[in-house]
Amino acid sequence: MPKAVLLLSGGLDSTTMLAYAIDAGFDVHAMTFRYGQRHAAEIDAARRVARHYPVRDHVVVDIDLRTFGGSALTADIDVPKDRGDADIAHGIPITYVPARNTIFLSFCLAWSEVLGASDIFIGVNALDYSGYPDCRPEYVEAYERMANLATRGGVEGTTPVHIRTPLMHRTKAEIVQLGRSLGVDYALTLSCYDPTPDGLACGHCDSCQLRRKGFAEAGVPDPTRYAAPVA
Amino acid sequence: MPKAVLLLSGGLDSTTMLAYAIDAGFDVHAMTFRYGQRHAAEIDAARRVARHYPVRDHVVVDIDLRTFGGSALTADIDVPKDRGDADIAHGIPITYVPARNTIFLSFCLAWSEVLGASDIFIGVNALDYSGYPDCRPEYVEAYERMANLATRGGVEGTTPVHIRTPLMHRTKAEIVQLGRSLGVDYALTLSCYDPTPDGLACGHCDSCQLRRKGFAEAGVPDPTRYAAPVA
Repeated sequence: MPKAVLLLSGGLDSTTMLAYAIDAGFDVHAMTFRYGQRHAAEIDAARRVARHYPVRDHVVVDIDLRTFGGSALTADIDVPKDRGDADIAHGIPITYVPARNTIFLSFCLAWSEVLGASDIFIGVNALDYSGYPDCRPEYVEAYERMANLATRGGVEGTTPVHIRTPLMHRTKAEIVQLGRSLGVDYALTLSCYDPTPDGLACGHCDSCQLRRKGFAEAGVPDPTRYAAPVA
Repeated sequence: MPKAVLLLSGGLDSTTMLAYAIDAGFDVHAMTFRYGQRHAAEIDAARRVARHYPVRDHVVVDIDLRTFGGSALTADIDVPKDRGDADIAHGIPITYVPARNTIFLSFCLAWSEVLGASDIFIGVNALDYSGYPDCRPEYVEAYERMANLATRGGVEGTTPVHIRTPLMHRTKAEIVQLGRSLGVDYALTLSCYDPTPDGLACGHCDSCQLRRKGFAEAGVPDPTRYAAPVA
């Protein structure tokens, strides 16, 4: 089984990707970040998901991106609610965390080099996404190129690393359908940017809206536990 | 004054680079990592250097690369001593820390984006160096390309970021001469991979050997405090 490092947030996308990677025969080493985000409920969801699947191991890495702030997820800035599809589809929102995926992938790269893993999975998506620069295919391609110059394999000509993005070109509804075909229990997952301390989703942030739209368009019942009924 | 983020380890190279960046008119924001290295003396040196110069601010970021290990600097592996020039010049030594510069630069990238800084300084060197993959010019170029796709500026077409490596093509002796011309007090600095707890250099690890050679070839007295007399 080829070894892979997989970024697991415990949300809908990364959980679907985990089910996909395991189904594809990878020996998965999952990595989650406690990065100073607004809530620990996300870490709880990642641990729940990692326990549910046969992952080889799961590490939770502590870094503090509040050192820099600059985002509604890492500074004292309100998370926008009910922005609507048009607003979500345009511009870079205040929930963007500067260089977050670059930092996350760099830790994955370190781990993959030590493990001798050939693949790094990241659940980025260029369709139903939040306009983040570090979710675009051209970014991922440039990251992979850099990664193959950064490490031992780049000098010695061994073990090139592939940044895998199986969700990149799927709509949220297609991701839900993929997960369903793989038996994913989405009740385990949490996508909300602003959940209650006990992990109930707000239903109104960009992430909740994209997720709700995905279930609706896929025609799949939404098992999300919301803090209050949503339309 | 253009803002810059500068990686400061408190060693000979990064301290020379700091003097260079300040001389060149940059408003310097210095960043140091407590990454699980063998000793805190390196952090003390970085703080000493940062206090000595008019840097705008200095942050010490905590990350724990012992999570992965894989290096004599982050795992329970002896630091090689007295390897000699030929050995140092060939291959990737056990002091290489997987993806370390990629991780460090990624935090610099986050900070530079929040600050609106246009430049990131890293004191890598392709001549008198330890054979690390992530010190080569082709790596730095690929990193810069990736960085400009990773961030807000890459989408909005503003503020490209430059990865500056003013030491890349200088010998260690030339770096010492540059520092001398800028008035650097190398007694403030610590380059050793394996110092005593109170910050005395071992004199025999690759880093000490390269440093000693630099002073000798530059014809500059070596102010390093060694744990025992060196030849």
